[in-house]
Amino acid sequence: MLSPTPRTTLRRSKERARTDREDLYAVLDAGLICHLGVVADGSPMVVPTGYGRIDDTLYLHGSTGSTSLRGTGEVCVTVTHVDGVVLARSVFHHSVNYRSAMIYGRPRLVEDDEERLAGLRAITEQLAPGQWSAARPPSRKELAATAVLALSLAEASVKIRQGPPVDEEEDYALPVWAGVLPLRSSWGAPEADPALIMDLDVPPHIASRTISIR
Amino acid sequence: MLSPTPRTTLRRSKERARTDREDLYAVLDAGLICHLGVVADGSPMVVPTGYGRIDDTLYLHGSTGSTSLRGTGEVCVTVTHVDGVVLARSVFHHSVNYRSAMIYGRPRLVEDDEERLAGLRAITEQLAPGQWSAARPPSRKELAATAVLALSLAEASVKIRQGPPVDEEEDYALPVWAGVLPLRSSWGAPEADPALIMDLDVPPHIASRTISIR
Repeated sequence: MLSPTPRTTLRRSKERARTDREDLYAVLDAGLICHLGVVADGSPMVVPTGYGRIDDTLYLHGSTGSTSLRGTGEVCVTVTHVDGVVLARSVFHHSVNYRSAMIYGRPRLVEDDEERLAGLRAITEQLAPGQWSAARPPSRKELAATAVLALSLAEASVKIRQGPPVDEEEDYALPVWAGVLPLRSSWGAPEADPALIMDLDVPPHIASRTISIR
Repeated sequence: MLSPTPRTTLRRSKERARTDREDLYAVLDAGLICHLGVVADGSPMVVPTGYGRIDDTLYLHGSTGSTSLRGTGEVCVTVTHVDGVVLARSVFHHSVNYRSAMIYGRPRLVEDDEERLAGLRAITEQLAPGQWSAARPPSRKELAATAVLALSLAEASVKIRQGPPVDEEEDYALPVWAGVLPLRSSWGAPEADPALIMDLDVPPHIASRTISIR
């Protein structure tokens, strides 16, 4: 169960809230990027960035000089998948089918070398499974330039909307087509870097992704 | 030109910043949802939500009772498209090809009825082109329950990354495949609401979307 706090207890659309931790993991694990919200100089700032998950910890990284990760103040991390557009009989009930996770917390700057590597590995593998061992590992200098933050998944909520529109009772008689227009993501064929200096095959861990629908 | 302020002037990855207003419009017009960042009780909060654009104004809507739109404090609206995963020769240079727009500002609560309708129309048409005139228009009661906010695009920035990885000079000799794994979005076949009470064809403005790649 996700432990609800006042702000992760949804006041509206309660039927869309999930409380199962597996739902949270599923939404996070299916994502490529999150939107990280911070307060900078009193104003909200929302930046797209990579992330990775190990058990109940989300890892974020950034340059040690970046604005969004400069402090370790409170953050809100949101991961959203849009699954389709919900076309209702009335304008008012148009909607989106989606899966979304929100995590609130105060991230911890990771100082332990082993955890830093594990966090970076999780972030890399989230984006590109298999690449942590296929590519050159981070150098000491690269590691020094990278801040790794750990955010507990203790305060999180998941919202999922799926299925057809929900219209006003009297609108079901209207001669208006209603339903869902699904949105799909898929991988295209890998595009080799023109600067590849030798004739290398696309490795199986990359090639195999292109036959899977995200 | 986008007018840069200190916070829309990127300190890092300057080569990814665009200053052309057409780039901003293109990123916004291609999106379905944005991530809206607000400060609620001193903490950042990032919620996915719909939006629409008319000229240099972005429109947002919400329930008149929702947390995220309760005040008209400062917001940050971010729209991100992920176009692919950049697979580099080193872990450190893995990246994402993306197009992202960030808008900062203090939204204005729209009170004028005509502008409210225009804003709601823009939000509906952003998600579902053609549906504003195909579906039942909002009733007086529905309009009363909906807050419409207008956000100026005056303070905005666009960041775009495209193309192959950029690796360290000495890493180009490594026998590691490098390139881009493109990510594509496409519409699936429209799924009719099982509650449709008559045999209606999918209207052309919906059916025609499914042959276009987003």
